[in-house]
Amino acid sequence: MNAPDLIIAPNPKACDLSQQVEGVDQDGNPVRTSVAMERAITLYVNKREIVTLMSIGDHPVLLGLGYLFNQGMVREFDDIKSVQYDIDLQAIVIHTREDIPFAEKLNKVTITSGCGQGTVFGDMMETFEDAKLPADQVLRTSWMVGLLKAINTTPSLYLETGAIHGCVLCQAQRPLLYMEDVGRHNAVDKIAGYMMQRGVSGGDKVLYTTGRLTSEMVMKCVNMGIPILMSRSGFTAMGVELARKVGLTLIGRAKGKRHMVLSGAERIIYDAPASAGDV
Amino acid sequence: MNAPDLIIAPNPKACDLSQQVEGVDQDGNPVRTSVAMERAITLYVNKREIVTLMSIGDHPVLLGLGYLFNQGMVREFDDIKSVQYDIDLQAIVIHTREDIPFAEKLNKVTITSGCGQGTVFGDMMETFEDAKLPADQVLRTSWMVGLLKAINTTPSLYLETGAIHGCVLCQAQRPLLYMEDVGRHNAVDKIAGYMMQRGVSGGDKVLYTTGRLTSEMVMKCVNMGIPILMSRSGFTAMGVELARKVGLTLIGRAKGKRHMVLSGAERIIYDAPASAGDV
Repeated sequence: MNAPDLIIAPNPKACDLSQQVEGVDQDGNPVRTSVAMERAITLYVNKREIVTLMSIGDHPVLLGLGYLFNQGMVREFDDIKSVQYDIDLQAIVIHTREDIPFAEKLNKVTITSGCGQGTVFGDMMETFEDAKLPADQVLRTSWMVGLLKAINTTPSLYLETGAIHGCVLCQAQRPLLYMEDVGRHNAVDKIAGYMMQRGVSGGDKVLYTTGRLTSEMVMKCVNMGIPILMSRSGFTAMGVELARKVGLTLIGRAKGKRHMVLSGAERIIYDAPASAGDV
Repeated sequence: MNAPDLIIAPNPKACDLSQQVEGVDQDGNPVRTSVAMERAITLYVNKREIVTLMSIGDHPVLLGLGYLFNQGMVREFDDIKSVQYDIDLQAIVIHTREDIPFAEKLNKVTITSGCGQGTVFGDMMETFEDAKLPADQVLRTSWMVGLLKAINTTPSLYLETGAIHGCVLCQAQRPLLYMEDVGRHNAVDKIAGYMMQRGVSGGDKVLYTTGRLTSEMVMKCVNMGIPILMSRSGFTAMGVELARKVGLTLIGRAKGKRHMVLSGAERIIYDAPASAGDV
């Protein structure tokens, strides 16, 4: 399994996603290093300025669509009348078929703890209450080992610059979409944007993230209808609590053959050779 | 240098900051692990609900004060008429002497890319333009090695649970305040709250963070008047750009004897033995 199998792969060599910077090392000697770009991209919906997102800027249309989807402001691509990205203005311009009552939605701001987003609008929690995730979806531990290897060996901006997050939409043992961004909320929103635009269902998918398993990531995953969330990082208490409440499978500290499941372990099939403690 | 020297140290054994959770390991065997708590703490200022912060909840008053300070809503402790924390309601209640024009400040929302915060209100960038950091402050590489060792060996919630950020206010070779939180924006805001409450100057300090060196962290550091920002993590392009613009010393990938300075290297004195590539 390698990068060409991906529908969307990272593009670490793109000249506009990273830049060379000169610095000084611990001994006072000059060094050069590569850092990921950050652009301020502003989202306008129905002529109203909604938010400015700091992004590497590789998939602005998907980012805008996914942001609206994960904020619960639109549910499907048919809700969108038009979407375009203005490169010069660094603006995503979206018009929806129905008007969105932003004043109400923007009224309540929660700063989440995630490596990331920050702002989740008030009524997302309400949507969350009614969420239903498919119970019959499974993930084999042998697939997990393969997925982790495929993801970690895919050339990425992370391997080029560090200090960046990745999210990967997977199906069984196959990674499909591998998005990166400075904030992982953007990486996952770009996946959500793709899924909405193409009508991709989340029910038979697994979402992998490099970031921590916070309540925010759980909420986004549920919102996208994906029953299994996996990360190489650890858990927060509220992430675990919400995952258990809604029946999401939550897999953390996934590295090599190792991992830990703190919610929804009934979706896991243990078919990989016993780990014997190796990584 | 160890924990007792700290004015405020992490409290990893506090029963309300982490909890034991049961799960399943990679071989299907039951395991127990410890995860950091997350609480939704709401900040009210002058009877208006401002924001809900997801925090471990250990220093809510400092968190509330520091949030207001780093948002540029108050400048000194004299601006505060009263501050209290209501444990039952999980609410920080602050009254200021002068009214704050929130409608204006809350109008423009930027989602930053940091592992963290998310929301920086519009006029922060304006404050940033006029910032002046002391040019004569220095950091010796020998101090850096000592600071990193002291910080990494201090018992912390991070060592207990993982998946949590730490920020440490340091002076020369001494760590003073070591704050942790699920989002590092909270950890740094708690330090800002302490500094404002006690009238601690940032000019002769160094701020260490476990998180990435994003534009958001640079802005907070400048806002706190601290000329040197150091992290074990990497850089983003905008973090570097802003640091260079304002003359902040930006030290990344600081581990053991190694580090890299991408801005303000003139504040570094190279007095540690040459690293010879060891870590």
